[in-house]
Amino acid sequence: MDIFDRISANRGPLGSHSHYAHGYFTFPKLEGEINPRMQFRGKTVLTWSLNNYLGLANHPEVRQADIDGATDYGMAYPMGARIMSGNSTNHERLENELADFVHKPSALLLNFGYQGVVSIIDALVGRHDVIVYDAESHACIIDGVRLHQGKRFVFPHNDIANLEKQLERAKRMTDETGGGILVITEGMFGMSGNLGKLREIVELKKKFDFRIFVDDAHGFGTLGPTGAGTAEHLGCTEGVDLIFYTFAKSMASIGAFVAGPESVIEYLRYNMRSQIFAKSLPMPLVIGALKRLELIRNHPEYRENLWTVVRALQSGLKEKGFNIGTTESPVTPVFLNGEIPDATALTFDLRENHGIFCSIVVYPVVPKGVIMLRLIPTAVHTLADVQETIAAFETVATKLDKGLYSKAPAAQQTA
Amino acid sequence: MDIFDRISANRGPLGSHSHYAHGYFTFPKLEGEINPRMQFRGKTVLTWSLNNYLGLANHPEVRQADIDGATDYGMAYPMGARIMSGNSTNHERLENELADFVHKPSALLLNFGYQGVVSIIDALVGRHDVIVYDAESHACIIDGVRLHQGKRFVFPHNDIANLEKQLERAKRMTDETGGGILVITEGMFGMSGNLGKLREIVELKKKFDFRIFVDDAHGFGTLGPTGAGTAEHLGCTEGVDLIFYTFAKSMASIGAFVAGPESVIEYLRYNMRSQIFAKSLPMPLVIGALKRLELIRNHPEYRENLWTVVRALQSGLKEKGFNIGTTESPVTPVFLNGEIPDATALTFDLRENHGIFCSIVVYPVVPKGVIMLRLIPTAVHTLADVQETIAAFETVATKLDKGLYSKAPAAQQTA
Repeated sequence: MDIFDRISANRGPLGSHSHYAHGYFTFPKLEGEINPRMQFRGKTVLTWSLNNYLGLANHPEVRQADIDGATDYGMAYPMGARIMSGNSTNHERLENELADFVHKPSALLLNFGYQGVVSIIDALVGRHDVIVYDAESHACIIDGVRLHQGKRFVFPHNDIANLEKQLERAKRMTDETGGGILVITEGMFGMSGNLGKLREIVELKKKFDFRIFVDDAHGFGTLGPTGAGTAEHLGCTEGVDLIFYTFAKSMASIGAFVAGPESVIEYLRYNMRSQIFAKSLPMPLVIGALKRLELIRNHPEYRENLWTVVRALQSGLKEKGFNIGTTESPVTPVFLNGEIPDATALTFDLRENHGIFCSIVVYPVVPKGVIMLRLIPTAVHTLADVQETIAAFETVATKLDKGLYSKAPAAQQTA
Repeated sequence: MDIFDRISANRGPLGSHSHYAHGYFTFPKLEGEINPRMQFRGKTVLTWSLNNYLGLANHPEVRQADIDGATDYGMAYPMGARIMSGNSTNHERLENELADFVHKPSALLLNFGYQGVVSIIDALVGRHDVIVYDAESHACIIDGVRLHQGKRFVFPHNDIANLEKQLERAKRMTDETGGGILVITEGMFGMSGNLGKLREIVELKKKFDFRIFVDDAHGFGTLGPTGAGTAEHLGCTEGVDLIFYTFAKSMASIGAFVAGPESVIEYLRYNMRSQIFAKSLPMPLVIGALKRLELIRNHPEYRENLWTVVRALQSGLKEKGFNIGTTESPVTPVFLNGEIPDATALTFDLRENHGIFCSIVVYPVVPKGVIMLRLIPTAVHTLADVQETIAAFETVATKLDKGLYSKAPAAQQTA
């Protein structure tokens, strides 16, 4: 069958909802400055959808650094891949400061996080190696694992007993092939808010020889005594061999980095396909990252403010009987029972009648049948914002219980 | 064997040269404004290494647009993946203008080119489909093909007779599986300067049912009567189903887009993993791209200037007996015989004594044993720059012929 014909016939799991969802539930436009109050379709909404954890997106010093970087260099500079013609003293300085910040010997700046993770995994393993990874790993990890030509074993999310079984299998395999074992998981899972059981995984090194690679996109800046992330929070920075962090969350930018032992970082610098064969991170983003890092380092109160809001939101929701799963982090999922039309009608009600904007997450980001509203508290939300939101959630939950949303399909409401 | 131990023992094809190459041949720093004359290790060099084809990197209107975008929005905006919370009217406007510019019905903006191509291929094909691709395809195409679970057949670079054989094999395969065939190649090959034989490939549609996906990263802005790229240049825009373009070359920025039929672009919008699960292109890059596109559209003389320089450089080099391969585009490779030490010593001489900076390309970017110096002419180079460069190349080529570089290893010179 012609590929385009098949595509036209089957729009995919998210695309099949686009006729009613587009522009509202999917591809919505949040306008105005990045703050808890933004504009959505001309109305002001209280926004809980952005990973602006520390509130840096509109920090005056961040905004000025972004202007300065653009003024001094423009978006073009430097041109080419870093290895060819795209290196600079600022790129190297940022790497050194990032390594210091996360308490690792060395760091490598990445032009984009997603392809960074894919190529890190690809560069680390060969066909004789075995990957063992958490089942709820982010799509970029999965894509990296998919490139692997050797064996991969998956363990159920955070199931350490099962991980041990997979390590036994991996050991038998590598005893034959002569390869090594790479365990991959996340620090802070961006959908559930769970933390990876890094301490328990590191503990398994006493029984098995393996290396650990952790994607801590969400942990950077939000967790740990100095903000160095999940491993620092759990007290196992040394045992976690290699850690990836993105600039897309707390740093409120794009780009990313990976930190670990000098020889491994040096190897990655010369062997990551997405970095050797694609353009360097533009200088204004490097200048902006230096400023953001400085603010995170010098203002632990941003992280404290974040956690004050997180605790108020999560305890408030739990008191009112909401199922927020097993989060141990700022990410606050609210799990609902009900079909997609119920959830879309509820979300519509929240946005239109209560002025509360949160993302609705459906398959394939969460398993089929599960509907999740995800709240992302930030350091710039207030406790009044929290109260307003919990009150609105109570109202809509009561309506959901009474089956009122089933009678008002979202398709009609948004048409 | 432990993965880190193996990495420490084997630095990879490029990493094994880092002890003498780092900071000079690899990861060099070109400083100052992006122009033909830049600073390298404190000296002014005439630079032929940047894909700033149309000279837009430092165009005053581009620089101002980059400042304006950063001032009005900051680098953080919008946050989140486009489908979740990262959409904007400007993102949509840019998509419409880009589709118009490349004469395709619809376009999808991508947050980064490399992962864009990988995920386009991944989203298009299923296990029953067969991919047929050019052997010299860019790394991002190869990574996309590597994700494919079905069969893939490779044809030698631009070998249409062999492509026809691969299509026969693919047809037999898909007759059984019920899948479709996707042919992937490039418009303008960034290393050799060759053009993909798009017209001949489109012609094969009369004999076989397949779709064509072309990576035209280098063709955008440089080729075709309106700058729409290689397919336009070759008069086969309609037959090439889906075309990818990057902002990293003529547009002097980062980001990318893919253009094609509305239903396919719509499918990609909802099914590309690197776009659904990663942050949207920041607004300053969108604002900057709108300005760059406007300039490319309104100033065909930039493209004409580029080609004046290209023709002077290529005919001049050929007159002096240099082997510039089979380039049909601005990319000007100079192929040398000799081992890596000869080539590095020659490059060192060019940079230090002649003030000419060009990239030296070795395995794995080009095959083992081949040493390539790559020159990238731009619209802002002058004919005097061309003459100066050809004269320098003559001098160093004479020294190479006399074996003078073999006596002066680069390791010593750069130490």
